[in-house]
Amino acid sequence: MAVYTEVTDDELVAFLAEYDIGEVVSLKGIAEGVENSNYLLQTMTSRDAPPQSFILTLYEKRVRPEDLPYFLGLMDHLADNGISCPTPIHGRDGSALRELCGRPAAIVSFLSGIWPKKSTPTHCTQLGAALAQMHEAGANFDGHRTNDMSVEGWKTLVAQTREHADNVTPGLGAVLDDEIAEIGKNWPKDLPDGVIHADLFPDNVFFLSEHLSGLIDFYFACNDALAYDIAICINAWCFEADGSLNVTKARALLRGYASVRKLTEAEYAALPQLARGSALRFLLTRLYDWLNHDDAAFVQPKDPRQFLTRLRFHQRVDGPGAYGVTYEEVGR
Amino acid sequence: MAVYTEVTDDELVAFLAEYDIGEVVSLKGIAEGVENSNYLLQTMTSRDAPPQSFILTLYEKRVRPEDLPYFLGLMDHLADNGISCPTPIHGRDGSALRELCGRPAAIVSFLSGIWPKKSTPTHCTQLGAALAQMHEAGANFDGHRTNDMSVEGWKTLVAQTREHADNVTPGLGAVLDDEIAEIGKNWPKDLPDGVIHADLFPDNVFFLSEHLSGLIDFYFACNDALAYDIAICINAWCFEADGSLNVTKARALLRGYASVRKLTEAEYAALPQLARGSALRFLLTRLYDWLNHDDAAFVQPKDPRQFLTRLRFHQRVDGPGAYGVTYEEVGR
Repeated sequence: MAVYTEVTDDELVAFLAEYDIGEVVSLKGIAEGVENSNYLLQTMTSRDAPPQSFILTLYEKRVRPEDLPYFLGLMDHLADNGISCPTPIHGRDGSALRELCGRPAAIVSFLSGIWPKKSTPTHCTQLGAALAQMHEAGANFDGHRTNDMSVEGWKTLVAQTREHADNVTPGLGAVLDDEIAEIGKNWPKDLPDGVIHADLFPDNVFFLSEHLSGLIDFYFACNDALAYDIAICINAWCFEADGSLNVTKARALLRGYASVRKLTEAEYAALPQLARGSALRFLLTRLYDWLNHDDAAFVQPKDPRQFLTRLRFHQRVDGPGAYGVTYEEVGR
Repeated sequence: MAVYTEVTDDELVAFLAEYDIGEVVSLKGIAEGVENSNYLLQTMTSRDAPPQSFILTLYEKRVRPEDLPYFLGLMDHLADNGISCPTPIHGRDGSALRELCGRPAAIVSFLSGIWPKKSTPTHCTQLGAALAQMHEAGANFDGHRTNDMSVEGWKTLVAQTREHADNVTPGLGAVLDDEIAEIGKNWPKDLPDGVIHADLFPDNVFFLSEHLSGLIDFYFACNDALAYDIAICINAWCFEADGSLNVTKARALLRGYASVRKLTEAEYAALPQLARGSALRFLLTRLYDWLNHDDAAFVQPKDPRQFLTRLRFHQRVDGPGAYGVTYEEVGR
């Protein structure tokens, strides 16, 4: 479960006294999510008012405390610029980030919606448009965070996982060596950049009756090539359980994106490389978690091999047309 | 985490169509609880109405489907008789129990409050009174369920755990043999009986600003000696982390109970035996879970040895006065 830190009553009451959101009426640990401890918090400002829902997050080991002002500031900025996402609740002192049970902690607004267990082309169209809107809304955000899960980060992860990679699937070590060598040479540079979400999997996108209601979990957000975010979504949304690309979904995603923001020629051309790098990124982090799985954490590690299949797909495509759209359809 | 069954969007929408509670706006798996899959469900009946919260439970392997009408009927009955507890939401066809994702499933009302991470004598006083109120409210409930976690159930559990008990703590096997022999001879009979909760640990009792707001989780409820429920609460609420009985808490619990319902002389006299049996009951189920722990379930088994310490305490007491009250204080 994703509750690593238990909050006692006294600590919670003292923490909430810093806010102007009323008194706690309920606090329940949320089972979803693996990085942080998340609670659904309900408060009431008066006896007659309906309870208000919030998410209380205690940031655990994977989040660097010095990155939190970037993440929280970004959520504030995106919400101010029309993006439906959780917004940090600021305390009486103006601060959105404080400490609870010895952890950095924040309260954010509750976002209605449920994440789609099975993605459809309709979801992908809306996802693409929302991603492009987020990219545009992020354009004038003045924070900056380097993507530590890009090429240099992958090299570190390869060094940490290489030795036991073949135990997970024979030949995986050699694949990692080849990919790192190849990506070092050909990783796209000078693409339009800005704020990217960098982890926009289905469980981070909410829908209400088939309409996208918002984006959550900005704790991998960083500054990088915008088109890399599209490549992540292709990997996260457009492959079927049998490992094949669903071209209809990829086309829907790319067209949805282009309905808001057109791709440059360089971005379009770079899609296969970006998708390959993104598949490698999730292959590596899942492999790391698989090899370093802590039984006591009671979080089921995800199978890294899914992303090996996706990586192999992207290695073999003969161009960006493999994702179902021509440059004329999605370019400037 | 306590979400064993994942509910897909389509299944949820079809399920909710059987109810008159509006459309889903949120569904989040709850991390607490170990027996069933619990979701916090929010629905809206109209665009302007505030969301309503419910608990959606999918009953997993430990609950026998044939017992569910007893549990749900009991919650209805207790709520009708003034007890603050979750009440089953009945569908358009009148039924509160249906199927979701191949599991028996029910929606119950959401109860405000948080469970106390550290119990205090004030909590125990209120707990005692609420337990007695529940016993009185259950008096005219016409369902009946035998307590399968009483003496016969313990014998089965001893048979299933005896072989490996000494691996958990040396000498435990012999303790179990002695207890079963002793309890077989001296288990109290003919005490006033009725509906008992049978699992009223702190995480099943909610408080709002130090006031008890309700009782939850009736999935071990059954018909048995009422005083056995008090003995369970003594074990669940009144021992400190160092294994010692907090007599102030036990006294508060018993006085709180007696403020609503007085004990008979036989009940008072039986307290040490009942407490001993109850300690054995939780020792055995925790031992079973410890020995049969399934890593894939990602639920951390609780340490059975806590209840061995409590069992030893109850073995040694020289009478019911050890729990901090005289018969004059709590008897008829």
